[in-house]
Amino acid sequence: MSIDPARIQVIACDIFGTTVDWRTGVADQVARIAQTRDVDLDAGAFADHWRDLYLPSMRRVNNGDQPWVNLDILHRRSLEEVLHEYGLDGRFDDTDRAAMVAAWHRLPPWPDTLSGLARLRNHRPVVALSNGGFRLLTNLVHHARLPLDGVLSAELARTYKPGSGAYLKAAELLDVPPGNILMVAAHVWDTTGAAEAGFATAFLHRPDEKGPQRTADRPDDATADIYATDFYDLAAQLDF
Amino acid sequence: MSIDPARIQVIACDIFGTTVDWRTGVADQVARIAQTRDVDLDAGAFADHWRDLYLPSMRRVNNGDQPWVNLDILHRRSLEEVLHEYGLDGRFDDTDRAAMVAAWHRLPPWPDTLSGLARLRNHRPVVALSNGGFRLLTNLVHHARLPLDGVLSAELARTYKPGSGAYLKAAELLDVPPGNILMVAAHVWDTTGAAEAGFATAFLHRPDEKGPQRTADRPDDATADIYATDFYDLAAQLDF
Repeated sequence: MSIDPARIQVIACDIFGTTVDWRTGVADQVARIAQTRDVDLDAGAFADHWRDLYLPSMRRVNNGDQPWVNLDILHRRSLEEVLHEYGLDGRFDDTDRAAMVAAWHRLPPWPDTLSGLARLRNHRPVVALSNGGFRLLTNLVHHARLPLDGVLSAELARTYKPGSGAYLKAAELLDVPPGNILMVAAHVWDTTGAAEAGFATAFLHRPDEKGPQRTADRPDDATADIYATDFYDLAAQLDF
Repeated sequence: MSIDPARIQVIACDIFGTTVDWRTGVADQVARIAQTRDVDLDAGAFADHWRDLYLPSMRRVNNGDQPWVNLDILHRRSLEEVLHEYGLDGRFDDTDRAAMVAAWHRLPPWPDTLSGLARLRNHRPVVALSNGGFRLLTNLVHHARLPLDGVLSAELARTYKPGSGAYLKAAELLDVPPGNILMVAAHVWDTTGAAEAGFATAFLHRPDEKGPQRTADRPDDATADIYATDFYDLAAQLDF
């Protein structure tokens, strides 16, 4: 580890994939909705395809190719694309689609998340720093009962991570220099973006994030100050 | 009670006085600092005088008489005034003054707060909606371990409560119509401001908020949808 824990004043955690298991949560809820419509679907693969459109959709906003909209709206647009690709346009009505988008508001925490975050929180303030909007994050934190001291959203900067503005707005609101905030994330693009904004970084490996058919982001591909296998390991490395 | 609990989608709680006991917390910390400087001080009365400048200082910002600054800065300016009034200008250095301002970041919850909020949270998302800035609120929530699903600050609207903008910005970010958010506060000015912004309101009576010499805001003077004696009573009235 290349940073002194004393330097860290606030811990900022990514949410989707790092703190909660989006794939299992979304696939389960989509499968239930598909069942009510007698649609036969590999819901895990469906969730993967949906998520594949996540980074490109945010990139278009950050590039200025599209005006700012929050993640619920991006999720809805991506959903329409995926349904079209699957030839399922006519099988799900507006209520079904809204329920699928709302699936991202109710996701299960990883097994180490609740007690791991609580352990970190015994030593430092812990906040969420996510591309989800406030409504989504409020519902998600509530559903999973995440023990956090605050929730910061890219919505406040109107720039999605990994754009520097998302991290720097959080640092500004927290009134803490970027170098004294530890960004914890399971994605190479997120630790890279955070480092570019001057944050300290911890890469948390979530090998199951993308399900059994795909490879999740690997520590070998990440550049970070700390590499951890879960929130307990992170706490231990920080001497917390 | 004049509202149907089913209407409430999110509960927004005021912090200072409603959730935490600012007077005890500030007085204790100021007393400790005064002791290190051999200054004899009635710290409770000092906290009262300091807090007396709270609403006027925010009113000047909302009126446009002063540009936006966050609550830490208003607290610091008010502190300078109070020290001057007390003839204590020369007795506390910059570090002492910064520590006094930081006292507002570490305040004890009322006895019913932690379990009462947890009970409310079993039924609805519960967020803070406070005039404190993000840094202050992050530290305060962390110190008291408040069980919340999010923290919203007047800082996001750059308008202090009871200005409508502070409430409406929160409703916009939560993506919930104002009438479906319940504002819980121990101050007449706060429930009045929230109602003007279209929120449902609960007045929580905190008779000890202003200490033994003064009278806290009374339910008889408030106009609210619900009148509660503490967070448990509020939960019971909502059938939670």
